Amino acid sequence: MRILLTVAYDGTNYFGWQRQKGDPVPTVEQKLYEACNSLFRKDFELIGASRTDRGVHALGQRVVLDVDTNIPVERLPRALNSFLPEDIVASGAELVSDTFHPRYDCVKKTYRYRILNSEYKNPMERKYTEFVHRPLDVEKMKEASVYFKGTHDFKGFCSSQTEVKSTVRTIFDIAVEKNGNIVEIYVTGDGFLYNMVRIIAGTLIYVGLSKIKPEDMGDIIASMDRARAGKTAGPEGLTLMKIYY
Amino acid sequence: MRILLTVAYDGTNYFGWQRQKGDPVPTVEQKLYEACNSLFRKDFELIGASRTDRGVHALGQRVVLDVDTNIPVERLPRALNSFLPEDIVASGAELVSDTFHPRYDCVKKTYRYRILNSEYKNPMERKYTEFVHRPLDVEKMKEASVYFKGTHDFKGFCSSQTEVKSTVRTIFDIAVEKNGNIVEIYVTGDGFLYNMVRIIAGTLIYVGLSKIKPEDMGDIIASMDRARAGKTAGPEGLTLMKIYY
Repeated sequence: MRILLTVAYDGTNYFGWQRQKGDPVPTVEQKLYEACNSLFRKDFELIGASRTDRGVHALGQRVVLDVDTNIPVERLPRALNSFLPEDIVASGAELVSDTFHPRYDCVKKTYRYRILNSEYKNPMERKYTEFVHRPLDVEKMKEASVYFKGTHDFKGFCSSQTEVKSTVRTIFDIAVEKNGNIVEIYVTGDGFLYNMVRIIAGTLIYVGLSKIKPEDMGDIIASMDRARAGKTAGPEGLTLMKIYY
Repeated sequence: MRILLTVAYDGTNYFGWQRQKGDPVPTVEQKLYEACNSLFRKDFELIGASRTDRGVHALGQRVVLDVDTNIPVERLPRALNSFLPEDIVASGAELVSDTFHPRYDCVKKTYRYRILNSEYKNPMERKYTEFVHRPLDVEKMKEASVYFKGTHDFKGFCSSQTEVKSTVRTIFDIAVEKNGNIVEIYVTGDGFLYNMVRIIAGTLIYVGLSKIKPEDMGDIIASMDRARAGKTAGPEGLTLMKIYY
């Protein structure tokens, strides 16, 4: 039986999604693995859709679970939640075909990046935002964001640790919204390179601070030069929102 | 020199505002006291405006600080923040007269109560909301909230631990707002009894769950009977937003 789970987590206290070999550190996958172990008490397999980094959050992580169980699929989230710590929540489960793969069958993903733009930090937002003290020009950020749409080689917008054949990706949609002193960037694409959303966010922050002009964004993307993009914004502001199949 | 500070905190890890005698437990006042000690290295006095409970948050706590210092008042927040833990932030400072008192001179206060109303918990909201699983009828909550406005004896809306001469208070304004799956209640009044906002929130949740009819709210308030109001909603959802002078 192949089940597709939806999983939400506060990434603050985890070394990212993926289970580590050797010295175990707390990861979300590890906690989910332990919860499944306690619940099923038999063999199972887990495959996560997205390897979120240390400190990154998720509201819509997807995980394939292969297990032979009598628990009705609609009751699985609650059953798992009784074994999960309070910062990880199973929030959905559905049956999928045996050939379904959570990574290969993904057609697009949406990430959100949150920025707190205010004179002082808000302690309630410290784990869920990047803090920017100087006022951001959100109109400029909106103007600049448009350049990311479409298919580009995002070589300049990924960490040097990236090991992939192609750095070409398509961004279907990007939106910058302001609500009070919170600025949110929503990005939807067919896939993202290592640190790509955080570098896009860091670059848009530079635009908002007038360190980069919106009309230069096209050139900066085309240059494929990491040095011309902004800093990699912190993991706290990033949330994996949704994976589409 | 009498200085009026604005202080924000995430109350999650504190036993409320007030410093405790005897066995010290972490409180916000205690941490602020220690930060002032480290910064000024001389005698000072602190008077907080509001004794928030364990787990309750604040964005607009006000604190009078009596100290003889050469630090310009506009630089005080940053100077204090360098000694404060990351879940407490000084976010304002102004000079006030020697006769100013943060409690007696208060003319009104605004609290916010946040509710997460969704099928599953959101781990990122677990410390900042009350979780309600069944759907809330927000229109009914709005209807019911109107009955709280005005001057009433709120004897039925306070903890039995309340020790005050009068349980009469005036609510100037109350609003119930829904944003996505977050329901927020904003209450502004001349003062609040012990647990009063949390009992109002708990009662409005009962209204939203159709356990109490909106049109019965007037009678329930007039009855002054704690048993007719709703449960005391948890501290996580409560934030002291603003104190007016």
